Amino acid sequence: MADRKIETCFSPALYEPELHAGSIVIVIDILRASSAICTAFANGARSIIPVAGVDEAKEYKEKGYLVAAERDGFVLDFADFGNSPFNFTPERVEGKTIVYSTTNGTRIINLASSAYMIAIGSFLNIGALLIWIKKQEKDIMLFCAGWKNRFNLEDTVYAGAFAHNLLESGLYSTRCDSTLAAIDLWSLARHDLRGYIEKVAQRTRLKDKNLDDCIDFCLTPDFTDKIPVMKDGLLTCLA
Amino acid sequence: MADRKIETCFSPALYEPELHAGSIVIVIDILRASSAICTAFANGARSIIPVAGVDEAKEYKEKGYLVAAERDGFVLDFADFGNSPFNFTPERVEGKTIVYSTTNGTRIINLASSAYMIAIGSFLNIGALLIWIKKQEKDIMLFCAGWKNRFNLEDTVYAGAFAHNLLESGLYSTRCDSTLAAIDLWSLARHDLRGYIEKVAQRTRLKDKNLDDCIDFCLTPDFTDKIPVMKDGLLTCLA
Repeated sequence: MADRKIETCFSPALYEPELHAGSIVIVIDILRASSAICTAFANGARSIIPVAGVDEAKEYKEKGYLVAAERDGFVLDFADFGNSPFNFTPERVEGKTIVYSTTNGTRIINLASSAYMIAIGSFLNIGALLIWIKKQEKDIMLFCAGWKNRFNLEDTVYAGAFAHNLLESGLYSTRCDSTLAAIDLWSLARHDLRGYIEKVAQRTRLKDKNLDDCIDFCLTPDFTDKIPVMKDGLLTCLA
Repeated sequence: MADRKIETCFSPALYEPELHAGSIVIVIDILRASSAICTAFANGARSIIPVAGVDEAKEYKEKGYLVAAERDGFVLDFADFGNSPFNFTPERVEGKTIVYSTTNGTRIINLASSAYMIAIGSFLNIGALLIWIKKQEKDIMLFCAGWKNRFNLEDTVYAGAFAHNLLESGLYSTRCDSTLAAIDLWSLARHDLRGYIEKVAQRTRLKDKNLDDCIDFCLTPDFTDKIPVMKDGLLTCLA
């Protein structure tokens, strides 16, 4: 039965696209891109266009699109708002297509583009995503965005929570040390996730810029049942 | 007091040489290169020349050197023996300079060559290395060899054991998520290290080739007080 494989990748610098052509890739950037994307869809966004460059985001703005764009925590002057999930309110996003500028996120989506499918994972949609994933007869690659190519803890404990649940189903197995480590770290974090995340480097970075107000929200399980998936350069929700 | 920094790198693909010019880099390849190197010095080897390529190893053999060389677990036909620590017996290595062929290990040593110093770490010399490190007023980079650029658990729990001890001394601090994760994994592994290592991928790979007989030995703390360091392309022991 346990014939579907789980692998975990801790950094874009470690991703091996040729190994995952048949897999569903879950893109994980808990603080904050994947949480913001799930929030946008929860609040009624129609679709999201992830773009890498500032110039590209600006061109979309000039065409009349709603643009969310930050660099190093600062909202770009032409943008409508920044990358915190709290910016994606129903008033702003309902029925809209949003251009979301994210260097790392866009890079990961491009790296994973040869996979069978790309979905966006966060604690906010973890339950719904797990239910849907188990209905697909596919191997899973848990792709942690990390930070500037480095390993980070918040994406890893999410990968651990996800992998733990999949293994418990009996449908999956793993021989991947990264997955085993993520599950072990989740076993330490799960009883007090907010307390555990206190120590992570990204929390300090966000706090230094007064951008840490959304962290508790980003760790909230099952805020939404939306499952954002990537198709032809566009993020939309599964019906 | 805690002004020395600890960082951990999980894979050669993630190493950033420009950040560690002033650091001591501990090269970690528990199964089996760093354990074999420590064993060789414990058994009286005079020095070790790590070489990357098979051709280079062969040239040394033709010059009369003792050569340890494997590829994918198979001893190369011209070599004197393979890469298991058990091959480096006093009878074979005492007073000798050994050529050790290791693609990954040599690559890591080259990557780290701009650091202040490179030392080889394994469980076999962990106590002596910790005592010596604390006498140096330097930042520490724990450089895990991994496997084919991937994260591995055995190098990571060693990094965790090492970092945990350094932090306990009050002389060091860390803001590196990789180090925090390694320490947490060590906290799970330490009470039954051999049991914990049962699950790692490299153990299965070695077992499949009947090369797993050395694993228990490689997890033995303080077999030796030798500290191999790299200088001018040569590994020697600190006096």
